[in-house]
Amino acid sequence: MSEKKPLILVSNDDGITAPGIRNLVDAVKHLGEVVIVAPDSPQSAMGHAVTISKPLRLYQTDIYGDIIAYQCSGTPADCVKLAVDKVLHRKPDLMVSGINHGSNSSINVLYSGTMSAAMEASIEGIPAVGFSLCDFAYDADFSLAKKIAARVAENILEFGLPTATLLNVNIPKIAENEFKGVRICRQAVAKWKEEFDERLDPNGRKYFWLTGKFINNDTGEDTDEWALANNYASMVPVMFDLTAHHAMPRLNSWDNSIKK
Amino acid sequence: MSEKKPLILVSNDDGITAPGIRNLVDAVKHLGEVVIVAPDSPQSAMGHAVTISKPLRLYQTDIYGDIIAYQCSGTPADCVKLAVDKVLHRKPDLMVSGINHGSNSSINVLYSGTMSAAMEASIEGIPAVGFSLCDFAYDADFSLAKKIAARVAENILEFGLPTATLLNVNIPKIAENEFKGVRICRQAVAKWKEEFDERLDPNGRKYFWLTGKFINNDTGEDTDEWALANNYASMVPVMFDLTAHHAMPRLNSWDNSIKK
Repeated sequence: MSEKKPLILVSNDDGITAPGIRNLVDAVKHLGEVVIVAPDSPQSAMGHAVTISKPLRLYQTDIYGDIIAYQCSGTPADCVKLAVDKVLHRKPDLMVSGINHGSNSSINVLYSGTMSAAMEASIEGIPAVGFSLCDFAYDADFSLAKKIAARVAENILEFGLPTATLLNVNIPKIAENEFKGVRICRQAVAKWKEEFDERLDPNGRKYFWLTGKFINNDTGEDTDEWALANNYASMVPVMFDLTAHHAMPRLNSWDNSIKK
Repeated sequence: MSEKKPLILVSNDDGITAPGIRNLVDAVKHLGEVVIVAPDSPQSAMGHAVTISKPLRLYQTDIYGDIIAYQCSGTPADCVKLAVDKVLHRKPDLMVSGINHGSNSSINVLYSGTMSAAMEASIEGIPAVGFSLCDFAYDADFSLAKKIAARVAENILEFGLPTATLLNVNIPKIAENEFKGVRICRQAVAKWKEEFDERLDPNGRKYFWLTGKFINNDTGEDTDEWALANNYASMVPVMFDLTAHHAMPRLNSWDNSIKK
């Protein structure tokens, strides 16, 4: 670590008042100067959305006392973009996102606003990590998650992260004495089987509400799902270069010529 | 191809009335039975957002004549989920998304609603491809893009796609006689340098509008950006397993133990 205090940007997708982000601030504030830029309302499942068709609001708030905090009307990715361009006066040394109320393991990394904030930071060249606790409850117990977040943040500040790589850390809903450690994993090959709840509105018109079941058919013991089911916290290194290099030879065998 | 007519799901992010999706329908309708489920309003830059905190509307529309078409109040990913669960009675043989008005090359794959619709289909196990024309104009010339879309769709129906892989196809804004062919590429390492336009509303309160400059420092000749700049259409195989396997050994060297 440099002599200068590390600058740590904190965001999330559950909104600036969520217990998860308060716990994350508590977990990392001893490591440097913390600045919070987080959504003013819940932004779960926003994926990597950014707001281009309407203006954004950004207001300072004193709910974190001495810690500089801004609430933003946009998505988690917007928060990071605004933080970098309008709030911070130097590039942060670390960006931490979360602690999400609910799992972002496996395929959920794609839908997650928590992870999109971390990914946006990583695209900016900022070492970044998203933390999620496998407990949706507002009054979830964040004590284990906080300790893990602190340790991982320390490690990133000390050792850095490989280029264009961020971390997706999920913490199981267990007591600390059951916890077996942090395990480096791959993203499990799982998916949501969607089921739309079909209802009628007060005017008799149909509407749909997204529900679904998480289906994991991946039996590997090297996955995040396996780790979480076996009392480990999962740590998946995530990249935003989505190129499927292994598929190139097959595609190169196609004739893609067009009719003149 | 099987004896049965292939079922082709079409969606986009510019909305069901956009010229781009009309051109895509024209390009592929000779290949099978086409069903359209697309957003009822523009959903650009929605990333992989899904709608979980409010209900969705889905209404049939006759603007495509004999072709079955539904407009949905949700995101592109919602459209695909609703199509699979509520509209289609068998799994589609192909999902095509677009043709987007504007490029989705390089890092834009992450922000793109067009690509998130294709990715959602791919997660469902449906061979999928997103098409984008590097021209934002409403009255853009889609004639070259249509021919490429038709050819690529034919190839996917004939040869399939590797497991858990979809395609991101971008078409340059050039005349057909300048076109050099379709090139299999990797995603260029580029990013947006955001710049927020800072303004005052009629009440004197500040707001921000996201703008930005696309910065490509990747000089490789195997990238989508290089292809597009050199009169090729780019075809990038895309995966949704984001695991950065190469980063694992380094992370395994960390001590992540927590204080008891």
